Amino acid sequence: MKQGRELPRLLVALVGGGAGSVIGSSHRLAMRLTERFDLVAGAFDVDAARGREFARSLHISEDRIYGNVESLIAAERKRPDPVDLVCVLTPNHTHFGIAKPLVEAGFNVMCEKPLTTRSEDAVTLADLVARKGTLFAMMYGYTGYPMVRHARDLIRSGRIGRIRLIHSEFSLGTPSTLQEDPQGHWRTKPGLSGESAVIGMVGTHALHLSTFVTGLELKEVSADCRTYVEGRLLEDNANMLLRFSEGATGMMWNSYVAAGTENGLRVRIYGETGGLEWNHVRPNELDLLTPGKPRQILTLASREPVPGMQGVSIAAVQPEGFVEAFANVYRDVADAIEARSRGDSCSAFPDITDGALGVRFVSAAIRSSRDNARWTRL
Amino acid sequence: MKQGRELPRLLVALVGGGAGSVIGSSHRLAMRLTERFDLVAGAFDVDAARGREFARSLHISEDRIYGNVESLIAAERKRPDPVDLVCVLTPNHTHFGIAKPLVEAGFNVMCEKPLTTRSEDAVTLADLVARKGTLFAMMYGYTGYPMVRHARDLIRSGRIGRIRLIHSEFSLGTPSTLQEDPQGHWRTKPGLSGESAVIGMVGTHALHLSTFVTGLELKEVSADCRTYVEGRLLEDNANMLLRFSEGATGMMWNSYVAAGTENGLRVRIYGETGGLEWNHVRPNELDLLTPGKPRQILTLASREPVPGMQGVSIAAVQPEGFVEAFANVYRDVADAIEARSRGDSCSAFPDITDGALGVRFVSAAIRSSRDNARWTRL
Amino acid sequence: MKQGRELPRLLVALVGGGAGSVIGSSHRLAMRLTERFDLVAGAFDVDAARGREFARSLHISEDRIYGNVESLIAAERKRPDPVDLVCVLTPNHTHFGIAKPLVEAGFNVMCEKPLTTRSEDAVTLADLVARKGTLFAMMYGYTGYPMVRHARDLIRSGRIGRIRLIHSEFSLGTPSTLQEDPQGHWRTKPGLSGESAVIGMVGTHALHLSTFVTGLELKEVSADCRTYVEGRLLEDNANMLLRFSEGATGMMWNSYVAAGTENGLRVRIYGETGGLEWNHVRPNELDLLTPGKPRQILTLASREPVPGMQGVSIAAVQPEGFVEAFANVYRDVADAIEARSRGDSCSAFPDITDGALGVRFVSAAIRSSRDNARWTRL
Amino acid sequence: MKQGRELPRLLVALVGGGAGSVIGSSHRLAMRLTERFDLVAGAFDVDAARGREFARSLHISEDRIYGNVESLIAAERKRPDPVDLVCVLTPNHTHFGIAKPLVEAGFNVMCEKPLTTRSEDAVTLADLVARKGTLFAMMYGYTGYPMVRHARDLIRSGRIGRIRLIHSEFSLGTPSTLQEDPQGHWRTKPGLSGESAVIGMVGTHALHLSTFVTGLELKEVSADCRTYVEGRLLEDNANMLLRFSEGATGMMWNSYVAAGTENGLRVRIYGETGGLEWNHVRPNELDLLTPGKPRQILTLASREPVPGMQGVSIAAVQPEGFVEAFANVYRDVADAIEARSRGDSCSAFPDITDGALGVRFVSAAIRSSRDNARWTRL
Repeated sequence: MKQGRELPRLLVALVGGGAGSVIGSSHRLAMRLTERFDLVAGAFDVDAARGREFARSLHISEDRIYGNVESLIAAERKRPDPVDLVCVLTPNHTHFGIAKPLVEAGFNVMCEKPLTTRSEDAVTLADLVARKGTLFAMMYGYTGYPMVRHARDLIRSGRIGRIRLIHSEFSLGTPSTLQEDPQGHWRTKPGLSGESAVIGMVGTHALHLSTFVTGLELKEVSADCRTYVEGRLLEDNANMLLRFSEGATGMMWNSYVAAGTENGLRVRIYGETGGLEWNHVRPNELDLLTPGKPRQILTLASREPVPGMQGVSIAAVQPEGFVEAFANVYRDVADAIEARSRGDSCSAFPDITDGALGVRFVSAAIRSSRDNARWTRL
Repeated sequence: MKQGRELPRLLVALVGGGAGSVIGSSHRLAMRLTERFDLVAGAFDVDAARGREFARSLHISEDRIYGNVESLIAAERKRPDPVDLVCVLTPNHTHFGIAKPLVEAGFNVMCEKPLTTRSEDAVTLADLVARKGTLFAMMYGYTGYPMVRHARDLIRSGRIGRIRLIHSEFSLGTPSTLQEDPQGHWRTKPGLSGESAVIGMVGTHALHLSTFVTGLELKEVSADCRTYVEGRLLEDNANMLLRFSEGATGMMWNSYVAAGTENGLRVRIYGETGGLEWNHVRPNELDLLTPGKPRQILTLASREPVPGMQGVSIAAVQPEGFVEAFANVYRDVADAIEARSRGDSCSAFPDITDGALGVRFVSAAIRSSRDNARWTRL
Repeated sequence: MKQGRELPRLLVALVGGGAGSVIGSSHRLAMRLTERFDLVAGAFDVDAARGREFARSLHISEDRIYGNVESLIAAERKRPDPVDLVCVLTPNHTHFGIAKPLVEAGFNVMCEKPLTTRSEDAVTLADLVARKGTLFAMMYGYTGYPMVRHARDLIRSGRIGRIRLIHSEFSLGTPSTLQEDPQGHWRTKPGLSGESAVIGMVGTHALHLSTFVTGLELKEVSADCRTYVEGRLLEDNANMLLRFSEGATGMMWNSYVAAGTENGLRVRIYGETGGLEWNHVRPNELDLLTPGKPRQILTLASREPVPGMQGVSIAAVQPEGFVEAFANVYRDVADAIEARSRGDSCSAFPDITDGALGVRFVSAAIRSSRDNARWTRL
Repeated sequence: MKQGRELPRLLVALVGGGAGSVIGSSHRLAMRLTERFDLVAGAFDVDAARGREFARSLHISEDRIYGNVESLIAAERKRPDPVDLVCVLTPNHTHFGIAKPLVEAGFNVMCEKPLTTRSEDAVTLADLVARKGTLFAMMYGYTGYPMVRHARDLIRSGRIGRIRLIHSEFSLGTPSTLQEDPQGHWRTKPGLSGESAVIGMVGTHALHLSTFVTGLELKEVSADCRTYVEGRLLEDNANMLLRFSEGATGMMWNSYVAAGTENGLRVRIYGETGGLEWNHVRPNELDLLTPGKPRQILTLASREPVPGMQGVSIAAVQPEGFVEAFANVYRDVADAIEARSRGDSCSAFPDITDGALGVRFVSAAIRSSRDNARWTRL
């Protein structure tokens, strides 16, 4: 782990991520793990009083506790020490309305996925970011796992040859009923979740993982969606065929009804001369397959060296978890912000292009499914 | 294991399965494990001299060593003790020509899969079997594994509720080159293998496993096939979407180019109230999933009792392998032959309907793929 | 698999292994799998009528069904075609009384373990076998697994360097009560089982596995035994320290009270330059460890080639089970009997030396435990 | 996760843990994850200039950067806001000399293990802590894993009945040579490491894990130690028999020469009615065994509820790693410090008694080994 940096810490504000927010605490802890960010401001809650109470518990000073993003923008712009990054951790359907004024005002943004719930908003936002030249990161946290990054490095180095197959899945057994979703089934509610439930929520992760690791582009999707839980208005299962650039093909499975399974994010990639398999159940292992040879279980301590590339790791060769993966993404963001302040560029993090890809993927898959799984271009 | 049966043993002849045949030895050893069959006759080889030498090594008496199926039929019909079963273990494209005269002559047949390489031949044969009333079994050996049968029993008993999802795969990393196939790449040669390579060879197993365990019917397939190894004339990878009866959906993956993987037969089934996962890599384990509960690893010794049903097992609670699975199928065939001789009926084995289904599946999948993965009914 | 042997089959008699005997059926089926033995005679049961009925079910001819070993010996000696091998599958305490007259009469013997329940009997028998020059095999079946044999080959070839550590265990959760043993708790009854319960029954397997794979000798044992189930007269758990030749050390654990575990036979061996781990739960895998490199999962299909050595395998590269392992031992016995008939020698099977070692191990461990786990030489 | 605490954060100083220290960064990050400590002071390095540079990189203010523990004590005592906790992260042989003046001056201490390298020092320190009434915590971080805590809760609730067997191991393949230890083989150097190498370094963790989870006391040890790597002065492998209170027995294996293995911390516990198995390779899983039932894989999301008890978890039901485990220990320490400030007591963390037990264990094991593995009381 990098240690002892002389640079001042980067200042951060959160929008959302208040009391009880699981994703909020993941972001906050991940930033703390990097030792490079200080959380100093925020509009943590739609309920301003509750947000203020929460902010105090985090020792945020009173003058940087805001009731909404507008007052945050107004006040931070005037400060001599405005925040370096604003994290947008609110429900899916509000991302666009919050992120847009932030970018317009010149703030760097870290946004939870999906970027937006409508394709046209994603395009608008991407154009805006390009015009303003601000940094816009997406939290696709799973690609922060060291063994996922090692998989990418092995592929880039040619270890498994030209890619032929990319099979991914992200399937869970919950929410298996309308009642089960503790936050009021917003995950399957059209207004809040967008036009898709499970593809938007977890399929976008599986796609980002696939493209991050292989470097290929998704070209077409054929999706067969179903709503198995009675009363739901959006799909809770999607079986999909995929076609990538350079002739690679694949399948993806997303589900909320894989009864009894937990976080089932998994990717398997096969090339001309080898294969790689990674499963989030055991995130610190990566299986490397070579024709005619025994399966190898790569770990942090027994990685296959890749010239000129190195994975990242918080805890040396000890098991790492979800928060460390997030932290790895945040370190890349910190590097990029510092590089920009020096006039350099650096973009080794999931950005608005990745975010917009996710939105286009959801849209294409839903259109495909409505047309009996017709092949649909992204 | 059942022991001490007073009945005389059933007499068997092989067609094919001569020197060097891996599948031949699996059948022979499986029959021996049942202790209910005696191999007494055969036309083991297209090379009659080599077949005779092999037959002698098995202590077959001279007068029951035949040069081809025609002379086998002619001679066995005249004997006071004709064989009770003829096993057809020849290459795919010869099954029809060999099985048809056997059925016409009234012999019971055990046939290797695929039943035929042309759909119309499968129909002809199925009609003939129906008319003649003979027994016609298919060797879908993987459904002989005790934990696969236990999965079927659990599903029948309602343990996982109404089935929603059936995901299966049978993928290998070989033959990964044209040269690698030791028997002259017949597995990927149109004339010998039929119109499909990998779907016919291994996809039919995955389908039989899926329908055997769930009791559902495959209705439609959407197949995206590719030939990744240069110079091959048939598909070596198939990504497929499936639709079953009663609203269940699924995906199937078949491959010869999953670089570095071995026999990757696997099925995962999810219903309203639970899931089941079985993987041929560890055939003596069955994972049972229940929402909100820990994953359970069922074994022969720790099965969940299913009223009125019982799995089969050769070696008590010790690990069992491929040959034992075949033997379980052969025991069911022995039961059925004996039941028929008593005027009873019994059909707990893969039969010509299962064989014909496999042929229809291959045909539908190949047609689908040629039409850009259009949904195609079986 | 070797096929097509011209030699006549070897004739076999069983003593014990009658109706309901699990071990009896394992031996019978294993011999059938080899295709090199014909079971033609036997004294299957202490209840002669029940034994006769069982023999008939196996199609044994009436004149070779015997009431006891004495009449078997008397009759077989007079025949022009006496049996080539007699298998002793009776309870532990009867092995000596049955095997001794067989050896005296010049018969080759396959004996279940433990060889005897008293050390002095083992010595007597070993001397007798040496004097008579007959073949005397022990069924230590676990060393018949292909991956166990591959482990031995790798060690012989120097793959993991000089051996330092040998850790083994064979622990079960049953019989966990006096009532649970279906055959009348003979496994924990002093008269029947000898002076030890769990060490004799399963520890001898773990020891044979350890010495078979490494080629080292056990020198000393320090055993801490306990009887945890109330009412038992023999130990049901043993924690042991071991010292082997050439400076290697190890630990062994044997248990009937490892609540909830099944057949827990496992061995882990570490040398100067690598390690090997094998677990009976997944008998078709062998883990190969190399310092600084990823763990490798060796299988039948992806073994590391060892010059001049080759594993054995019934079912090509398919999963194999317990009966196949037994069959591999029986094939070695068949090879040895045939070699002797040609005047050659061949001893690649567990023999009376291995059997006597097991008896000495049990005796030393029990004496050690009675003296507060004092180091005791074998 | 607990959120939003109104209490001011606790102030912390480090002794040791400077640039390049792996354990230092684990402690620092773990404290950050709790959001309840502020690192504000320290004597980070024996090289004062290097320590100062490192402290600056952490944004420690100049007046709280100290050259050694003495000046830290002197200055912090005089402040109105002295640190609430001092963490001692220096090499083993210096713990006593640093911790003693801290306790004497009334500071709360978190000490890395082993507590001391000499038994008499551990006694002295424990007496001192008792007299002064300060808080003294030990970092046995592995017992901070949520599934380890769940194992303890299950055992306390009687889930597996009275404990019979406790088998543990902590074995690695490194340092496998004298050269390999990157910090100058201090791990195997008598002066620095104490009288033991591998037992002190990792065996103490295995022991703490065993006693933490079961609540039993270790009574006697019989240790067979070896030094396998030529030139080493302390043991690099220990095979041990253990006797616990209430009749439980066990074995423990510690090694630096388990060639090719990584962090092999593992514990298996069997009681009258069930078993529990935990392995650090997959820290987010806990196997629960029940006689006659399938093995269950418990996870954070599928724990078996234990009335009145609850595990802890940083990242909800996502995989957690080593730093999160440390953080869980630190949260308990924070709770205890705050409870004391309110006049309450709270001691749910590894304390000096646990530390002293580790030192006594090492001493007893080494004495046992010198006397040919004689049983030695702690």
